[in-house]
Amino acid sequence: MAMESKSASDIKQKIEAANAEAVRRINAADPVLVDIASAGEVIPGLEDRMILHSGPPTDWQRMCGAQKGAMIGAVLFEGWAKSADEAFKLLESGTIKFDPNHNHRTVGPMGGTISVSMPVWVVENKTFGNRAFCRQVEGRQQFGDYSGAALQGLRLWRDVWAPALRKGIFRMGGLSLKPIIAKALQMGDELHNRPVAASSLFANALARPMIEAGVPKDDLLSTLNYITNHELLFLGLSMASGKASADPAAGIEYSTVVTAMARNGTEFGIRVSGLGDEWFTAPSPRVNGLYLPGYSERDAGADMGDSAITETVGWGGFVLGGATGILALVGGTPEEALAYSRQMRQITVATSPNYRMPILGFQGAPVGIDIRKVVQTGIVPIIDTAIAHKDPGHPIIGAGLVRAPLECFQKALRAFGRKYGVSRT
Amino acid sequence: MAMESKSASDIKQKIEAANAEAVRRINAADPVLVDIASAGEVIPGLEDRMILHSGPPTDWQRMCGAQKGAMIGAVLFEGWAKSADEAFKLLESGTIKFDPNHNHRTVGPMGGTISVSMPVWVVENKTFGNRAFCRQVEGRQQFGDYSGAALQGLRLWRDVWAPALRKGIFRMGGLSLKPIIAKALQMGDELHNRPVAASSLFANALARPMIEAGVPKDDLLSTLNYITNHELLFLGLSMASGKASADPAAGIEYSTVVTAMARNGTEFGIRVSGLGDEWFTAPSPRVNGLYLPGYSERDAGADMGDSAITETVGWGGFVLGGATGILALVGGTPEEALAYSRQMRQITVATSPNYRMPILGFQGAPVGIDIRKVVQTGIVPIIDTAIAHKDPGHPIIGAGLVRAPLECFQKALRAFGRKYGVSRT
Repeated sequence: MAMESKSASDIKQKIEAANAEAVRRINAADPVLVDIASAGEVIPGLEDRMILHSGPPTDWQRMCGAQKGAMIGAVLFEGWAKSADEAFKLLESGTIKFDPNHNHRTVGPMGGTISVSMPVWVVENKTFGNRAFCRQVEGRQQFGDYSGAALQGLRLWRDVWAPALRKGIFRMGGLSLKPIIAKALQMGDELHNRPVAASSLFANALARPMIEAGVPKDDLLSTLNYITNHELLFLGLSMASGKASADPAAGIEYSTVVTAMARNGTEFGIRVSGLGDEWFTAPSPRVNGLYLPGYSERDAGADMGDSAITETVGWGGFVLGGATGILALVGGTPEEALAYSRQMRQITVATSPNYRMPILGFQGAPVGIDIRKVVQTGIVPIIDTAIAHKDPGHPIIGAGLVRAPLECFQKALRAFGRKYGVSRT
Repeated sequence: MAMESKSASDIKQKIEAANAEAVRRINAADPVLVDIASAGEVIPGLEDRMILHSGPPTDWQRMCGAQKGAMIGAVLFEGWAKSADEAFKLLESGTIKFDPNHNHRTVGPMGGTISVSMPVWVVENKTFGNRAFCRQVEGRQQFGDYSGAALQGLRLWRDVWAPALRKGIFRMGGLSLKPIIAKALQMGDELHNRPVAASSLFANALARPMIEAGVPKDDLLSTLNYITNHELLFLGLSMASGKASADPAAGIEYSTVVTAMARNGTEFGIRVSGLGDEWFTAPSPRVNGLYLPGYSERDAGADMGDSAITETVGWGGFVLGGATGILALVGGTPEEALAYSRQMRQITVATSPNYRMPILGFQGAPVGIDIRKVVQTGIVPIIDTAIAHKDPGHPIIGAGLVRAPLECFQKALRAFGRKYGVSRT
């Protein structure tokens, strides 16, 4: 009995130290936008005839409608098929390889589909030297809409906007994102559903370098039009920053800190630092939100996307108290929003020294979700999210809030107990 | 006695109706930036060898140190003198005419000095057709610094930035400011000390039109550098918008609504709708704030500037609860900031249907300060402000909060009683 107590206390100390280290690494992250490049050129392990997707692993049979639609769009975008029917058959045939973004240091919003010729944001964490990648955020193709208009947005991104922005980024020698993120959090952003301030600051930062880099006038005007009118533009950058910040915290023995939360519209999965690359999954929850005209709860697919990487590092729903402007989009009251941010402190290891909420007296964002605290308290992470249709072929239909399923954390904690030889931690 | 009650009740009804009309006009305002032009060309009644200034009327003898410094800067900027000494003597001699900005449909931050060749923002209230003007916001000359570096900022504004912006504004056919102001209030701005979101949105809006208008590359880059790095840029526009919004509410018989609050560093003055152009003044109060390194309370001049026009129409201190990011600059707690916004509802006639605070459940900004309510409750308007030095020759030294002096409102209410034949209203 004394031996057992000693051992339990030893393990607890090891866990606390490991979690402190995990959070130290997340907080020390220094994400810098260094490039926008074709996915095939920069994402490790991304092959031709492969489409990366959001969430834990899946296959064509289990895939939700919106992600199937996004896959059809990706196949058409790459020119691997000439029609949606042909694309559908190709995808069904099994000749296109699927793999989660998270297996490739990558994240993607909603369907999260990424294929070789799609330009992606390249964010380097200067503190640790690791890179992370995220695709363009738009409101159609990634939601399952594979119409000509939906694909046109991807083509303009590939042919005009991404190349122009790349020139600007190179001209300025990379753009430090930490100051933009910190500032945006003091401007009512939560950097997930509401990155409007960050998007505006980003557009401000890029205008001059693009001109200095000699981007041709037509491309310059088109790109400025795109970046100065795209309020969700920065989400791709906050996601890449989140992934670049979380990755160095992965693989720390004994750490119970969550390093990824991601959903594919069928399953919600989490990864835990001390448990390597294993996914702990549960069925994807329904989103509680508001719908665009013409759509209702009956049309909604389940929760989807890698964007919960923002909550994983302490943004999004975790800083909702500082971003009450978002309530017009997702519903709820300021009191609820403040309560969420306070509640998230109960399931996290620390607060951020950099990312702060003025309305809570400049308190830091809650960082480092501890699976033990989640299971002990029954409080699960709150996540801001968008809503996709249950069937392929639709653009965005709404936005709202969702809770991560407790089951993921319970499964992870049991696996932790098995691996580290503890039944209670 | 019955007669008297009848009469008192009649007058009260007239006041209520007049105040409702005053607030209706303020809320109906539609400020649009239509031009940036030389003050001498657009400001009615501005003559050569005249310098407009902030606050109620003053003269060289009573003028505070910072405003004297700003006057010296203006004289040097216009080339009316070759040295600061010469400028001082010229100003002392009485050959330069002084007049308050407010007498010319104009406002100016801090010293608020405006002379003929200075380009000013021209904002038209499209609902009522009136125009208002405000000078450039910068942190040196208007605070009393007349050094070469301080004047260089004015020259670049006159020769490069204002002309480039003018081309952009003409190209886009004017820029509607109401949507920017409404949006900025949901992004943590209060549009007085903290117009950071509005400034960023404004820069986003101007970049493309300036390119389309063919602004030469060097001027374009210089102007983009200026507007994308000037967090107080929009203050000049929110002040001009405030003035353009408040002016149609002036001159309504029986209205007890305040139509201007302005300070010249010696006196704080207010104007009241039903009392015409008369100023009701009291000594300018001390500011409660935080100081820049090297300065302290001992160096501070008293409250100064026309910028309280923003509070007059319901922004600034009145929406501080929605702009807690500012507390890092001015001090105080979020609870205090929320309390200010709630308190201002007690002395105002209505709330804004356009300008809302998410953190207070999207409650509208408190609009239409009623001198009766101020005197009855003893609650005076809270104002965000910057701090200038007590002596000429210094740039900005701090920022903070200040309360309007109760005496102004008491004097106005007594005058109201005399004019409308009531001793109690």
